[in-house]
Amino acid sequence: MPRTRIHNFSISLDGFATGEPQSLEAPFGHAGQRLHQWMFATRFWDPSGSAGVDDAFAQQFAVGIGAEIMGSNKFGPPGWQDDESWTGWWGEDPPFHTPVFVLTHRPRPALTMGGGTTFHFIEASPSEALSAAQEAADGLDVRVGGGPTVVRDFLAAGLVDHLHLVQVPILLGRGVRLWDGLEGVEESFDVESVASPSGVVHLTFTRRTD
Amino acid sequence: MPRTRIHNFSISLDGFATGEPQSLEAPFGHAGQRLHQWMFATRFWDPSGSAGVDDAFAQQFAVGIGAEIMGSNKFGPPGWQDDESWTGWWGEDPPFHTPVFVLTHRPRPALTMGGGTTFHFIEASPSEALSAAQEAADGLDVRVGGGPTVVRDFLAAGLVDHLHLVQVPILLGRGVRLWDGLEGVEESFDVESVASPSGVVHLTFTRRTD
Repeated sequence: MPRTRIHNFSISLDGFATGEPQSLEAPFGHAGQRLHQWMFATRFWDPSGSAGVDDAFAQQFAVGIGAEIMGSNKFGPPGWQDDESWTGWWGEDPPFHTPVFVLTHRPRPALTMGGGTTFHFIEASPSEALSAAQEAADGLDVRVGGGPTVVRDFLAAGLVDHLHLVQVPILLGRGVRLWDGLEGVEESFDVESVASPSGVVHLTFTRRTD
Repeated sequence: MPRTRIHNFSISLDGFATGEPQSLEAPFGHAGQRLHQWMFATRFWDPSGSAGVDDAFAQQFAVGIGAEIMGSNKFGPPGWQDDESWTGWWGEDPPFHTPVFVLTHRPRPALTMGGGTTFHFIEASPSEALSAAQEAADGLDVRVGGGPTVVRDFLAAGLVDHLHLVQVPILLGRGVRLWDGLEGVEESFDVESVASPSGVVHLTFTRRTD
């Protein structure tokens, strides 16, 4: 059975997946790059990087994935919908290499980029978006790419089979929280934690099949 | 130099140190005993318990401590101030064995219990309370015993030298959060994380001396 997966999703110790305010110059607001430095230090990101536990988790990102779903706030800075020339943060060759479904209240025509990434802009509920992505994934898994609002919505709807979080030991104090309104969600999952020598803690939520 | 320390302070993955509503029957509200089961399973709590990493941390609770400071909400359920016969949750022999300073807007006479515990009820700022506790501790360390509001106030005031948190992999969704308003507090500390086979993650914040 294809699964719905979330990978390398970084949060602060106080649960924020991004700081504020988000802008073209600062996609994660006052968090800067602090939530993702653990990943930049891995071979997954940089061939001269580390190959330990952080890398082992990071490398799962693309394995067996046939499509991604992302929220509007991941695709661009506030107001990107008003800019017809905006094609995402990632340049000509985005790191997805699959169809990507961007959830937005203002759909636009699909956008084909290099390396196999095509952005589809759809207005859809989580379950509708998942159906579209599963069809495009052709038997492979679907990744929910974030941001925090989308991850939260998919968790609340019971649509996530695998969640990999990376808890970074900083206190952002403000931004967008992952956890609001998810009381008891862990009851459907086996949860594991492992501390990395880099200082982050990897948490995996694996949906119970019993 | 005596230090100000916090030990065995348990929070949910979403940062709540207690559920709601708190009452005589349910001191931690809907959290029940879930935040502290890791501790009940250790030798620290039960002679037949485990002696691994959870126990090693738990055992630090009383070592070198000469006084405790606790908040009003730790001493009793809502409304305990109206009950002159209330002497705390812990019976005749409370587990503190030192002077304990209870922060309250309604001071009452000191209360001497068995085993060396005396409760002093004071209306004081964090720094005033710490001065009083340090004098009573007579050269030993002072423990800040919680609840979350008191821990947060002492962290915000820069008065904590050592913080031991235990993150339990449950999502309470509601209650009293530890982290609100503590942006950047980690910058004054060395932070370590270690995952326990029991499923909890121990985090230590050790104040930098440089």
